Amino acid sequence: MTPSPLASFLRGGGAQEAHGAASRSCSPQEILRRLRSAIPGCPVLSEPEELRPYECDGLTAYRETPLAVAIPESIAQVQEILRVCCALRLPVIPRGAGTGLSGGALPRSGGLLLSMARFRKILALDPLNRTARVEPGVTNRAISEAAAPHGLFYAPDPSSEVACTIGGNIAENAGGLHCLKYGLTVHNVLAVKILTPEAELLTLGAEALDSAGFDLLALFVGSEGLLGVVVEATVRLLPRPPLARLIVAAFASVDSAAAAVGKLIGRGFVPAALEMMDNLAIRAAEEFVHAGYPMDAAALLLCECDGPPEEVDEQIALAEEQLRESGAYFLRLSCSEEERLLLWKGRKSAFPAAGRMAPDYYCMDGTIPRRALPEALRRIARLSAEYGLPVANVFHAGDGNLHPLILYDASRPDELKRAESLGGRISELCVELGGVITGEHGVGVEKLDQMCIQFRAAELAQFHRIKDAFDPEGILNPGKAVPLLHRCAELGAMHVHRGTLPFPGIERF
Amino acid sequence: MTPSPLASFLRGGGAQEAHGAASRSCSPQEILRRLRSAIPGCPVLSEPEELRPYECDGLTAYRETPLAVAIPESIAQVQEILRVCCALRLPVIPRGAGTGLSGGALPRSGGLLLSMARFRKILALDPLNRTARVEPGVTNRAISEAAAPHGLFYAPDPSSEVACTIGGNIAENAGGLHCLKYGLTVHNVLAVKILTPEAELLTLGAEALDSAGFDLLALFVGSEGLLGVVVEATVRLLPRPPLARLIVAAFASVDSAAAAVGKLIGRGFVPAALEMMDNLAIRAAEEFVHAGYPMDAAALLLCECDGPPEEVDEQIALAEEQLRESGAYFLRLSCSEEERLLLWKGRKSAFPAAGRMAPDYYCMDGTIPRRALPEALRRIARLSAEYGLPVANVFHAGDGNLHPLILYDASRPDELKRAESLGGRISELCVELGGVITGEHGVGVEKLDQMCIQFRAAELAQFHRIKDAFDPEGILNPGKAVPLLHRCAELGAMHVHRGTLPFPGIERF
Repeated sequence: MTPSPLASFLRGGGAQEAHGAASRSCSPQEILRRLRSAIPGCPVLSEPEELRPYECDGLTAYRETPLAVAIPESIAQVQEILRVCCALRLPVIPRGAGTGLSGGALPRSGGLLLSMARFRKILALDPLNRTARVEPGVTNRAISEAAAPHGLFYAPDPSSEVACTIGGNIAENAGGLHCLKYGLTVHNVLAVKILTPEAELLTLGAEALDSAGFDLLALFVGSEGLLGVVVEATVRLLPRPPLARLIVAAFASVDSAAAAVGKLIGRGFVPAALEMMDNLAIRAAEEFVHAGYPMDAAALLLCECDGPPEEVDEQIALAEEQLRESGAYFLRLSCSEEERLLLWKGRKSAFPAAGRMAPDYYCMDGTIPRRALPEALRRIARLSAEYGLPVANVFHAGDGNLHPLILYDASRPDELKRAESLGGRISELCVELGGVITGEHGVGVEKLDQMCIQFRAAELAQFHRIKDAFDPEGILNPGKAVPLLHRCAELGAMHVHRGTLPFPGIERF
Repeated sequence: MTPSPLASFLRGGGAQEAHGAASRSCSPQEILRRLRSAIPGCPVLSEPEELRPYECDGLTAYRETPLAVAIPESIAQVQEILRVCCALRLPVIPRGAGTGLSGGALPRSGGLLLSMARFRKILALDPLNRTARVEPGVTNRAISEAAAPHGLFYAPDPSSEVACTIGGNIAENAGGLHCLKYGLTVHNVLAVKILTPEAELLTLGAEALDSAGFDLLALFVGSEGLLGVVVEATVRLLPRPPLARLIVAAFASVDSAAAAVGKLIGRGFVPAALEMMDNLAIRAAEEFVHAGYPMDAAALLLCECDGPPEEVDEQIALAEEQLRESGAYFLRLSCSEEERLLLWKGRKSAFPAAGRMAPDYYCMDGTIPRRALPEALRRIARLSAEYGLPVANVFHAGDGNLHPLILYDASRPDELKRAESLGGRISELCVELGGVITGEHGVGVEKLDQMCIQFRAAELAQFHRIKDAFDPEGILNPGKAVPLLHRCAELGAMHVHRGTLPFPGIERF
């Protein structure tokens, strides 16, 4: 059985730890004094009651108390903070809104939490060029709101869009309901300004389709705070489609709904969104928001088509035909914007709604090739029975991005551990089916062990070399996203040659 | 005046050279003996007449003779070659079809040219998942041909598509006529298998929208052979649009055509292609292939719309309206597939056609924000007059990717040097206008000096760290793509503090 991610995180099995021990030779008081004198006027919280709100991110089961929380408001202040931390070799954990679900912004005991919450200015909006230049603490939704008067929007729409910030979206390469058609964060960010751990300001990417030199922008997006701190982002804006309509299709079996997904995409058009909910999720959502879903359905598909009206009509006709052929016994098409939003409301409320069915839930994230969807769902159902924990499935079916929701009760002995173990098995299933252990939530501390299954030692070693190329002292978000090779070896998930890992240059033991 | 790129390349000013000197202590005969004994049965060419075809790539003005050319046919053979070269610290220059235009596959005197021409198998084609798994020597066109029976195609379409290989496309992040709508190579490759210089096999990317860990795939695409050798690629296939129609619009001034581009895109749809030709290019093309272009036009726009017929009709109507409003005095719409191909033939023949107007031509490549198009074209015209060399403009206007074609006569004293210098000025103009020095051809040896203008020392230093993270001995394609900091300092293009570059860890002088 996979050990608890937090336990492993605390035993220090993540990406390299801060190499030096200088910070240990400095008292907490002395560290705070140095920080405060470097950035006069910038809040540096250190009282227990001030630190409490920062103890966790969206992966709420895990908590740590940082030494302090700094809340700078200028690039110069972040640079000063990084210089102090670099000199002290003090771990720095960057944080946006703290809505991440894999523990990427989990603080580190004795480390500094760097909140970018005060960087919330929209610096420029260029409707002709269709770009927005924003500070990292601007929320995802705020960008679309600012672009709306020009008929434009920012496409990635994670379900936390009201709260989550573009800096965090970049760190985790956030997706959302509509990334099937419009891509993930990496496809919608043109350039970023970052600070390296040594406080050097770099510009990655450009306002052009291609950029010269190595593509450090794409490398940076999704790097989970390990390579630098975003201080500015230029994002692409898209014209808002004139019309969007949603079809809700009900199926008598999960299998036929899952099979319909591949067939629908195989028809040659890409819906704006293609979501799936199983019966547990349907019932939870319907009882919660009364969207009008058929409660008896084994599975629903929600298929949105957007674009010019003629194109939408044609896609709707094609989709309805295919859904019927695939066995849908009930179809409902939104006939107004109000109806479309109501039908979406059920889907969007499914997570909190499922939360009403059990005291706790654990939201997983993995991606599989579309053709493996029926098998994946069958096997998740078997695993759910094996562990005796209900699993609701509400997910981005179109791009094969699963979000199994494991329901449990943390007050019962061992249930959290069982939920985590079941989650680990589901991640491993994704890899077995040719998929990956994350779709849009990132690895964080949650999926460190699964990284050992996803990648071979050669690839993990290359990740460490990349980390070293940006952060030689290892002060930025240590312990996250990339497991140490010895951790994988201890898990038995990696081949070890004659007692030595294949990359002695990286690590010996 | 910018010195000749080749001259600078030969004086050793590119990305780090092979660090060691072991290869110098080994005679050419001994190197050849070791190579041949490591890969029995694999051709290792070393006779002068055998080497001649490999002396240059598409940047034909520059030639070098390698020590030898190896033409392996299996991954194991490439691994053996890399092991020998690594041990000898012998430079290895990977080569696809050699159609690149920036000298990325220019051999190195005394180094090994690694031809991947025999890796030409299509390993798998999955119509349901819409992917193809291919060897790196498969041509771009061959992938689309294999996919055609399933109604699918591979989208990037560089003008060398018949000859160029997917391995080379990945190295240079190739684009093409239709990348405005369908993206560059990086947007259409899902995963690659590469060999590191130490012969380690790595898988980068996955058959999923997102992948865990750092995005090494995006980093690798466009890395110009500096980070590894592609030995397999999995690419995305797209459904072939049911209909495509082309509008040719003629303008009485370059300015109004250039302005029309921004307005057209501003209307909220993305044409499948949006190309521009100026009068010099129009005349050359029309006299060559008789496509029916109006010879008196100052500029043409070629706007292709594709998709379902209703959508195409709607886009055509919108485009025609906008083109007229922008001052087009002549519009022609293709009414059959034959007519569409004929109208494209002029554009596609423009480079060879322009070649008939002067003994030599030099094709530049840079990208600017769309809004800067009118100014860019005005200033290129002024530079052309200043240097006394005609410049024809035929380019991907929709994504601001310029391809000025400088016409010259290499037999006249100094004209090659003047053409290169003019090219350098055009690249610098792109940077000044907020653009980048390459759109799809790469930096190679051609634009090393312009990299010093595009990037600050901090960013170049980060590129070198990335190179070191993959190729610590610096044996892969040394001297290409990323200039050494001292070279930039010598050019006066980089700020030097008190006689020391800001990154002494990277380089001291």
